[in-house]
Amino acid sequence: MSEQLTQKVLLQATNPKTGKDLEGKFEPNSLQDLSVVAENANTAFAQFRHTSNEQRARLLESIGEEIMALGDALINWASTETGLPVSRITGERGRTFNQLKLFASLLREGSWKEASIDTALPDRQPVPKPDIRKVLVPIGPVAVFTASNFPLAFSTAGGDTASALAAGNPVIVKGHNAHLGTHQMVAEAIGRAVKSNGLPSGVFSSLIGADFTLGQALVQHPGIKAVGFTGSFSGGKALYDLAVARAIPIPVYAEMSSVNPTILMPEATALHAAKLAQQLAGSVTLGVGQFCTNPGLIIGIESPELEEFCAFLQQEIAQLSGGTMLHQGIYEQYHNGVQAAIAQPEVETLGSGREAKTGLPGDPLIATCKATTFLGNEQLKEEVFGPYSLVVKCKDAGQMVEVLHKAGGQLTITFMATDSEMKNNQELLAVATTHAGRVIFNGVPTGVEVCHSMVHGGPFPATTDARTTSVGTDAIKRFTRPVCYQDAPQDLLPDELKDHNPLNVFRTVNGMITKDKITTD
Amino acid sequence: MSEQLTQKVLLQATNPKTGKDLEGKFEPNSLQDLSVVAENANTAFAQFRHTSNEQRARLLESIGEEIMALGDALINWASTETGLPVSRITGERGRTFNQLKLFASLLREGSWKEASIDTALPDRQPVPKPDIRKVLVPIGPVAVFTASNFPLAFSTAGGDTASALAAGNPVIVKGHNAHLGTHQMVAEAIGRAVKSNGLPSGVFSSLIGADFTLGQALVQHPGIKAVGFTGSFSGGKALYDLAVARAIPIPVYAEMSSVNPTILMPEATALHAAKLAQQLAGSVTLGVGQFCTNPGLIIGIESPELEEFCAFLQQEIAQLSGGTMLHQGIYEQYHNGVQAAIAQPEVETLGSGREAKTGLPGDPLIATCKATTFLGNEQLKEEVFGPYSLVVKCKDAGQMVEVLHKAGGQLTITFMATDSEMKNNQELLAVATTHAGRVIFNGVPTGVEVCHSMVHGGPFPATTDARTTSVGTDAIKRFTRPVCYQDAPQDLLPDELKDHNPLNVFRTVNGMITKDKITTD
Repeated sequence: MSEQLTQKVLLQATNPKTGKDLEGKFEPNSLQDLSVVAENANTAFAQFRHTSNEQRARLLESIGEEIMALGDALINWASTETGLPVSRITGERGRTFNQLKLFASLLREGSWKEASIDTALPDRQPVPKPDIRKVLVPIGPVAVFTASNFPLAFSTAGGDTASALAAGNPVIVKGHNAHLGTHQMVAEAIGRAVKSNGLPSGVFSSLIGADFTLGQALVQHPGIKAVGFTGSFSGGKALYDLAVARAIPIPVYAEMSSVNPTILMPEATALHAAKLAQQLAGSVTLGVGQFCTNPGLIIGIESPELEEFCAFLQQEIAQLSGGTMLHQGIYEQYHNGVQAAIAQPEVETLGSGREAKTGLPGDPLIATCKATTFLGNEQLKEEVFGPYSLVVKCKDAGQMVEVLHKAGGQLTITFMATDSEMKNNQELLAVATTHAGRVIFNGVPTGVEVCHSMVHGGPFPATTDARTTSVGTDAIKRFTRPVCYQDAPQDLLPDELKDHNPLNVFRTVNGMITKDKITTD
Repeated sequence: MSEQLTQKVLLQATNPKTGKDLEGKFEPNSLQDLSVVAENANTAFAQFRHTSNEQRARLLESIGEEIMALGDALINWASTETGLPVSRITGERGRTFNQLKLFASLLREGSWKEASIDTALPDRQPVPKPDIRKVLVPIGPVAVFTASNFPLAFSTAGGDTASALAAGNPVIVKGHNAHLGTHQMVAEAIGRAVKSNGLPSGVFSSLIGADFTLGQALVQHPGIKAVGFTGSFSGGKALYDLAVARAIPIPVYAEMSSVNPTILMPEATALHAAKLAQQLAGSVTLGVGQFCTNPGLIIGIESPELEEFCAFLQQEIAQLSGGTMLHQGIYEQYHNGVQAAIAQPEVETLGSGREAKTGLPGDPLIATCKATTFLGNEQLKEEVFGPYSLVVKCKDAGQMVEVLHKAGGQLTITFMATDSEMKNNQELLAVATTHAGRVIFNGVPTGVEVCHSMVHGGPFPATTDARTTSVGTDAIKRFTRPVCYQDAPQDLLPDELKDHNPLNVFRTVNGMITKDKITTD
């Protein structure tokens, strides 16, 4: 019945600034469409999994080139659909392009498969030691749910897609209804890249749905082997619950919810109150606060210096305007979230920004409360997605630790501190590495560098899987698993495991990392 | 109420050969005891997580030494409790000792933390590139459920405990009721090692339970951050279901169920029918078939050569005796499993071994059926834990592929094949790497080498997490997660991430693996 319903409604994107429907109608996919693309993806996997690193590097580069070839049409359309400025979308396109190139370079370097070789000892007593060789292999079709707040870099050709393809897995993207046109343009660009690289069309597929039904069916489909998701806690957790309840459970990498605590240590606050207020006001309101790493919780110690910081923050925020939020749902959630927060007992409004004269306005707001209030309240630790932050005033460093424990799993925790303050508060640092994927010193959490060492992840509820990252090259490992070969003939082994190391990659040989060939004499 | 019940019943181990209760009664732990040990473990973690690789290497070695110091008393007691021969227990003790030493060597080498450094580019446009440095960190207290079939190597001081401690996590072991005395002796030995290394007692705790209540509560306890388990599908899946339903879900590494398909290719069968029959009969019956890697499914192609192999297998099995099974539950499950298998339509008994004159006898049995029978039946792919195997006769290699797909996720898949047969049947190899963690050529799956490249894992239902291994050094990664530091002062960084690389470990620096120091000039 739900299938019939989804086929009747045509989807349309909306301009969030004007509230008007945009040109172009999109037919949502049926569950039958899902079955077809899942089958195509599995058929394509049989070929795609055997492609070389070089072949997949070229595919990723081609995708980047096809996206650039869309030119201003993509930029303008994405800006219109999301309300994000052209400059931001242009920057995000650059990031998407560079991300694809970074994975291409990882593939060409070749050591990412964690090849490991233990050579045989045929004369060992009491039993001979066999030859064991391990390598990472792709797992099969991956479902990717795109993010509304990053229409390019965390969407159709974003990090999840790039890393899943890089590992050798077909991808099925479920496009976000807030940027249907952008999704379609990018999906078609990827399709062209797949074709021009001589790969089967099932390597990449795209679906859109009128409601949650299609996405739920996607996660439950036996042909899907893993899920990447960036979005809300409720959305990510719902997909996780479906995935772990399958007859054969699959991994879900959902990046969901984080308030990104920022800790103001007293010396640093005293030294830099004005600068810190300016930095944090900028970070809280960047992109209308619609970043996963928005600093939604600022933690200081009650003092004249903290009051000075608060006064500066009030001034800074007062000078900043709100902006158009991404879509109706986010707009409503932001306003409801702010209202719920400031309606809590003993929570005050510290300051607010200028009202934005636009559709779906998201206006900056800073609230404040004492640590005891925060510790005794379940509402205040919830993420309010938008240009909002809560300043929590603690009595001492011990209470800061309590606040961090209460706030729970995070993508980031930031310290504004002098070197000597950090040295004298090692427990705070230990607590931060317990709860966060990334710990930042004297910077702001917004701005996630795409590089080898990035961890954009963290303990639940920041993500459903703290063992990984969704940004940076390690993201590729989410869509692999290890396989070992025992006493395999040389020519059946993947190139990474052959004695003469034809790809010249780093391998662990009898426990030592090396590029050396194996010599059997 | 359940707590009151568990406190009233004293537990007693039984000699499986005689059915008689053994000396010594053990008081099961209460839920209150669980709370206490969980709190102790979390308190200990605050210190243990900061220990050096060298300190933890010494702890592991001390545990090995304390176990060896138990001498024949441990060997004899474990043999009496499990029915396993003294020679086997002695070998298993050696494996346990060597496993601890292997993790110690991994820690001393030091590169296991996957340190990665991306250096800053302060002049990059449009924004400076920060300094990002990543390392693996321990996650907190790990619950380990011990295996009945490996009273030492997969139990109290087995691979799960060794790898969790190696990573810097406190361990709480839930001992198996089939070897309570062995568990207690080893737990006390570990306790002595913890103490002599000057570590807090909460680094290692041990619990036993009268029923499933305690183990369930252990997995649900908020103080527990991951679970290691080796045992039945029903046990592992039940713990998984509890763990993913927690308010904060945690990873479960359960190694559960595998029939370990062994594929007899025609040329190899023709060349070596007698030898293959001897090898497989030995592997099926080794340790009364009580290994996770027991070859429970032998797949051949209908031919005179396969009939010859079957005749040899029948002869080999007829010469082999059964033995004492580990405990009443396994004994009953084995007999029920065999009965259920041979009661299926079109399944025949190919051969059986000699009756064991002992308590809880597990007598060898080989059944056989056509591939069409196997493909149309849900019962036949179930693991029958014990000295049983099913020979499935296929029409051709295509039907072998179907049988592998039907059999599903496995710890191992084995090929008995000539080199040219493998070259001409690449699809079969691809299917094997899809479904198994380890692919073996012309050997038997029993015998799991403890080494760096081992993958003792595989797709569900072989395990609940195909991304890992429970044997070999990579097992340590199960109990870690990555954290990155952004623009951290040098002296706050873990040693692995410091510029001058004081531990001299391999690191990924700007994408390249190296031991070089970072020079900032």
